[in-house]
Amino acid sequence: MEEKYKEIAEELFTRSMTESEMRSAPYEFPEDSPIEQLEERRHRLERQISQDIKLEPEILVRAKQDFMKIDSTADLELMKDMCLDTVDDGFRERALPLEREYQRVSISGEEKCGVPFTDLLDAAKCVVKALFIREKYINRSMQNFCKTTSRALQELGMKPLDLRVYDDIPDTPVDADAPVHPPVSETHPYDNQDPSNMPADTGYGCQMVNGLVHVYTNNNNMDKGAELDLPYPDLKEYIADMNVMMALIINGPVKSFCYRRLQYLSSKFQMHILLNEMKELAAQKKVPHRDFYNIRKVDTHIHASSSMNQKHLLRFIKKAMKKYPEEIVHIEHGRGQTLKDVFETMNLTAFDLSVDTLDVHADRNTFHRFDKFNAKYNPIGESIIREIFIKTNNHIEGKYFAQIIKEVMFDLEESKYQNSELRLSIYGRSRDEWDKLAQWAVKHRVYSNNVRWLIQVPRLFDVYHTKKHLANFQEMLENIFLPLFEATINPRSHPELHLFLEHVSGFDSVDDESKPEHHIFNLDSPLPDKWTEEDNPPYSYYLYYTYANMTVLNHLRRRRGLNTFVLRPHCGEAGPIHHLVSGFMLSENISHGLLLRKAPVLQYLYYLAQIGIAMSPLSNNSLFLSYHRNPLPEYLSRGLMVSLSTDDPLQFHFTKEPLMEEYSIATQVWKLSSCDMCELARNSVLMSGFSHKVKSYWLGPSYSKEGPESNDIRRTNVPDIRVAYRSETLSEELNLITHAVRTEELDGIDEDDSLSMAPLLGKR
Amino acid sequence: MEEKYKEIAEELFTRSMTESEMRSAPYEFPEDSPIEQLEERRHRLERQISQDIKLEPEILVRAKQDFMKIDSTADLELMKDMCLDTVDDGFRERALPLEREYQRVSISGEEKCGVPFTDLLDAAKCVVKALFIREKYINRSMQNFCKTTSRALQELGMKPLDLRVYDDIPDTPVDADAPVHPPVSETHPYDNQDPSNMPADTGYGCQMVNGLVHVYTNNNNMDKGAELDLPYPDLKEYIADMNVMMALIINGPVKSFCYRRLQYLSSKFQMHILLNEMKELAAQKKVPHRDFYNIRKVDTHIHASSSMNQKHLLRFIKKAMKKYPEEIVHIEHGRGQTLKDVFETMNLTAFDLSVDTLDVHADRNTFHRFDKFNAKYNPIGESIIREIFIKTNNHIEGKYFAQIIKEVMFDLEESKYQNSELRLSIYGRSRDEWDKLAQWAVKHRVYSNNVRWLIQVPRLFDVYHTKKHLANFQEMLENIFLPLFEATINPRSHPELHLFLEHVSGFDSVDDESKPEHHIFNLDSPLPDKWTEEDNPPYSYYLYYTYANMTVLNHLRRRRGLNTFVLRPHCGEAGPIHHLVSGFMLSENISHGLLLRKAPVLQYLYYLAQIGIAMSPLSNNSLFLSYHRNPLPEYLSRGLMVSLSTDDPLQFHFTKEPLMEEYSIATQVWKLSSCDMCELARNSVLMSGFSHKVKSYWLGPSYSKEGPESNDIRRTNVPDIRVAYRSETLSEELNLITHAVRTEELDGIDEDDSLSMAPLLGKR
Repeated sequence: MEEKYKEIAEELFTRSMTESEMRSAPYEFPEDSPIEQLEERRHRLERQISQDIKLEPEILVRAKQDFMKIDSTADLELMKDMCLDTVDDGFRERALPLEREYQRVSISGEEKCGVPFTDLLDAAKCVVKALFIREKYINRSMQNFCKTTSRALQELGMKPLDLRVYDDIPDTPVDADAPVHPPVSETHPYDNQDPSNMPADTGYGCQMVNGLVHVYTNNNNMDKGAELDLPYPDLKEYIADMNVMMALIINGPVKSFCYRRLQYLSSKFQMHILLNEMKELAAQKKVPHRDFYNIRKVDTHIHASSSMNQKHLLRFIKKAMKKYPEEIVHIEHGRGQTLKDVFETMNLTAFDLSVDTLDVHADRNTFHRFDKFNAKYNPIGESIIREIFIKTNNHIEGKYFAQIIKEVMFDLEESKYQNSELRLSIYGRSRDEWDKLAQWAVKHRVYSNNVRWLIQVPRLFDVYHTKKHLANFQEMLENIFLPLFEATINPRSHPELHLFLEHVSGFDSVDDESKPEHHIFNLDSPLPDKWTEEDNPPYSYYLYYTYANMTVLNHLRRRRGLNTFVLRPHCGEAGPIHHLVSGFMLSENISHGLLLRKAPVLQYLYYLAQIGIAMSPLSNNSLFLSYHRNPLPEYLSRGLMVSLSTDDPLQFHFTKEPLMEEYSIATQVWKLSSCDMCELARNSVLMSGFSHKVKSYWLGPSYSKEGPESNDIRRTNVPDIRVAYRSETLSEELNLITHAVRTEELDGIDEDDSLSMAPLLGKR
Repeated sequence: MEEKYKEIAEELFTRSMTESEMRSAPYEFPEDSPIEQLEERRHRLERQISQDIKLEPEILVRAKQDFMKIDSTADLELMKDMCLDTVDDGFRERALPLEREYQRVSISGEEKCGVPFTDLLDAAKCVVKALFIREKYINRSMQNFCKTTSRALQELGMKPLDLRVYDDIPDTPVDADAPVHPPVSETHPYDNQDPSNMPADTGYGCQMVNGLVHVYTNNNNMDKGAELDLPYPDLKEYIADMNVMMALIINGPVKSFCYRRLQYLSSKFQMHILLNEMKELAAQKKVPHRDFYNIRKVDTHIHASSSMNQKHLLRFIKKAMKKYPEEIVHIEHGRGQTLKDVFETMNLTAFDLSVDTLDVHADRNTFHRFDKFNAKYNPIGESIIREIFIKTNNHIEGKYFAQIIKEVMFDLEESKYQNSELRLSIYGRSRDEWDKLAQWAVKHRVYSNNVRWLIQVPRLFDVYHTKKHLANFQEMLENIFLPLFEATINPRSHPELHLFLEHVSGFDSVDDESKPEHHIFNLDSPLPDKWTEEDNPPYSYYLYYTYANMTVLNHLRRRRGLNTFVLRPHCGEAGPIHHLVSGFMLSENISHGLLLRKAPVLQYLYYLAQIGIAMSPLSNNSLFLSYHRNPLPEYLSRGLMVSLSTDDPLQFHFTKEPLMEEYSIATQVWKLSSCDMCELARNSVLMSGFSHKVKSYWLGPSYSKEGPESNDIRRTNVPDIRVAYRSETLSEELNLITHAVRTEELDGIDEDDSLSMAPLLGKR
């Protein structure tokens, strides 16, 4: 029997032998292993090619060729140039344009887009129409519209080219020890509270008419005549445009056209990577000092009330229980409760508390359960704990919350390169919310160079209405916007708010998008002052009126030389697709955009308009879409303007560096290259609300230009090659569209008709 | 046309309406939202049930029932008991057994295992046989064999029950401020270098015969007669056992039997979770203070030379360049080079250096490319950098490496709850490696309570042989083992080594397992002293001779009252399946074990024997198996003894907390519960090489017992329910097997035949 076993064993051994193939070893290798020597030589050569001036480039390049398996003679030439260019510039000089040479994929032949010309034509018309619609609303509200797209449209000669002009900040330091932030005045931004230093009262008056604030030259005379000339958006026009958009996104042929193009963009990127990955990598290595760890990143979507992770909150609560046991923190029917009382009534001691009892972390059970998820916002399941520790407006005037946010800010400043756009809530329940919030920020001096504020407005009219806080929707709008107009017309009337607003970049609109909407927004919809029904207004209704008032406000503020705001709502996280239509028309950029993966037309439009999308895969993973199915890598490959954000470290993150954790997981799970990571980080800065000056510091003085010259690899660590690929691809795509439209114009059909989009109505 | 658009839009709106369903909101909610109140009440009730003594339990429990959707009256009873038990014990008392009640899944009926009895019988015999084989080798080498399994086998009455007996450490502190580590002597473990305090010379002699060290009572007389009586393993026996194992794992019926059982274990666990998840969660919440962040975790698989992350290494190198520019760090043909010289010859300044230039991080291109991966070990692609900074044996006697490792240790001590088993290399190239390594550790006082050493031996005989460092394999074995025997026979002859060994837990065997093996290990294989061919000995050959010598060494050390060692090789990361057979027979636990997913019989055996498997999904993700396909969650659900480890933070991790990063990603991607995470952490401590005393501190005084009483949730944060489920499931599984075998015995066939495993040879 022994023998028999032996046979079996031997057979098995031999089988396994044939299976295996040569590889080398997973740990320290003896000094002179062949592979190592090879790798070493390759590395040394790369370095020399980019540095050594003594040696004959030709030879090196040939050598490099062998190692990098490049064999086109064009490449050979190019590389020779490369090493000549970079000669003795010691990297302090801007790398020369030739650095940007790379292998391009170009399509030749008649029909470039793989669909019959007529289909292309119909689709092109629709797409162009849609882009014009967005451009109109974005420019009107003084938000940013993609330059490249704008130029393409302008060439169709239908709109004047209206671009915000930036004066470049001549040259900003880049070396390692350069200040991370542009020089700021010595004094703390909140120090200067003396009203007399603030812009004077203009004496204007304002009131809300049909849900829209109107401004009058004189606050005693509010009749039509005295109205200040501001571009008040028109509801009829909006509804009409929205209907066009709707018709457009469900049109069959357009759908399949966009789908094809998106597929094309994916494969094109894949080819780009296969051809240029090595070059991109080499470019990154050549940049002295800079790497993923020390490029600027902005957490473009994060809520202040959950910006600390669970361990941080726990530690803070324990600290507070030790430090202020006797402080009156809460009024329970008339009598004050000390922190000690509060925890005693819960039978909890500082010792007992643990992350588990705190129970603020999302888990399996929160998947597709927004209600559970939301309840997690109550530490220990007690809203009182939240009220005491993570609210700005409570018995202790948000003292604890201010402290914890300042700790978060401190960590960001420590990290030096990480920045956040924290969301604070305005509910629109009462008129004094803004002043209270501003007072909280100013009084506790809650400010950091690494942080900008965004104001999130929960869509809770129905709740307040049923609770009789609000009689109609217009009251909510008034509570949200009138204080802002007052503070703009006469800053001295709201000094803290005036100071606070300087650090607010815009508005976010939040709530569970998957809540059912029982109303259709059209011309028959009741106007805000008539909106008295139980139902909550639909998403698009909220968004439109926020947009409309923000637009008027922005024009007024611009006149007064004050900063303007942008709209950056939660959009397309769940619920109906048409939320993404409102987002497309009205907002500078959005958070989530998950549902674009189901709407090819919109995804294509978001690409062409380069609308920023702040994605939070870990958040989605706990709530709507498991990590692997998240579309971020697909969006990125197609060239959509995506960034990574944490949304909610309190619930989703474990380590002390939530943003790094978010990047790390994405990189590992999706095998992103260091170049991809740096591109994501650069996008996050581009779409963020930080000032033009700050961005020039972080991305380079001409970041607002188009194409590779907008990039400074010494700051972004993104190879010019990647930036060039993106902008060229976008231009080609826009060309394909506009060219098609133009050709028909040339056939003498007048423009209006050429954009009639008859096909949408199924004429053909 | 307007109209037409309107129609389309409206239709679209209405469609979307029907789709949506009620949920609630993703941000701060008004104080009195219904869900919140609900959740609050549930929480408050849970707390009261476990704390409040005044209230009538009955009522509460009924209430709790409603909220937790439990409706068995048994449950009702139990919970009442629960809250009575925990009355006024303030959690300082051990929770009572009733805490452990949970809903069990039991199978009734005749044929319990879903396969015909005869198949069961055949399979059972094979499995039992295999387990006996492992037990024999593990006990012989004084490694740990699973108690439960051992008892089951013993009941078959074929082997004496040989279990290592531990005296429980009576009671060890658990409260928050208790010391993390058991009290250690004031003096640094390396202070006591005075040989006179070390065990005296026994005068024994030793020499290697046929690859196995033999010890003689007298070092002048080394003939057979004078041989010290130690259990020298027998090669013939090993080969025979191995062949049996081989035959066993490819036997069809056994395969399908094991596969079925594994499937069964998966679904059983799933049911357990569905039934008891809430209870497990509640149990965790009831434990004061303890949570995932402050339970002990051991990084069971990590290499010292890459235990720092890339950013850390970069910072250290830059620091060194500033601090010791003039230090002679390296001899280049005869003349010394200062650190400055070294970097100048590479045209690099401290400023230039970045993580990108360092280039030590694994990327897309390392997937299935061990060679590239290995080259990554050379910072800046220069082996000289590695030699200077991450080697123990260089011109500066590993000064820098010692410093950086001490920084790593400091971080671990800071984290307080994270511990590591760092791998250091012994190559077996020369006889003095051990002493040099020990001197490095002792001289630089590289020691931490949070760290234990493992010795990794790369399988590089072929390389050294071709380089004429070694004439035959036996020389390599001598270089690895003779110093250890000398230091054991006469510690005073190797004082540093003697001290160092006290902190070494065992041996790891490393190399790329997918390298082809051109040789079959059998009785015809040349003995080590005859092994002079080009080829590298196969995996099993390396493992056997390491095992054999370690076994003799352990017995010798035990006699002298010194600590013994265990075998914990890299095994089943890639390459042929039969590596896992050697691992099963000879090693206490293994690293990786990825290939078990392709070998049901072995996976089932690893489960039954509860062999520790240190898995590193992030490492696998870069090298062999993308994250989603990693079998860890499957192993865990089936109850295999798995833990999470980093393997290689330098190459795979981004944050400052690699181990937490590893846990975080696993938790997020696989949606692990907090209970799963804590179980993984507990496993990591159990399978680690930390002392019995330390483990009793970390897991509880009776951690080495079986079943729930081995668990102390106040330290592990693992609910007794989970532990109970695991041990009951294991016992049932073992019973199924042994019962089958016994029944046949009763039929009077003598044991030998009953274990003849005729079926293996296809007799039937």
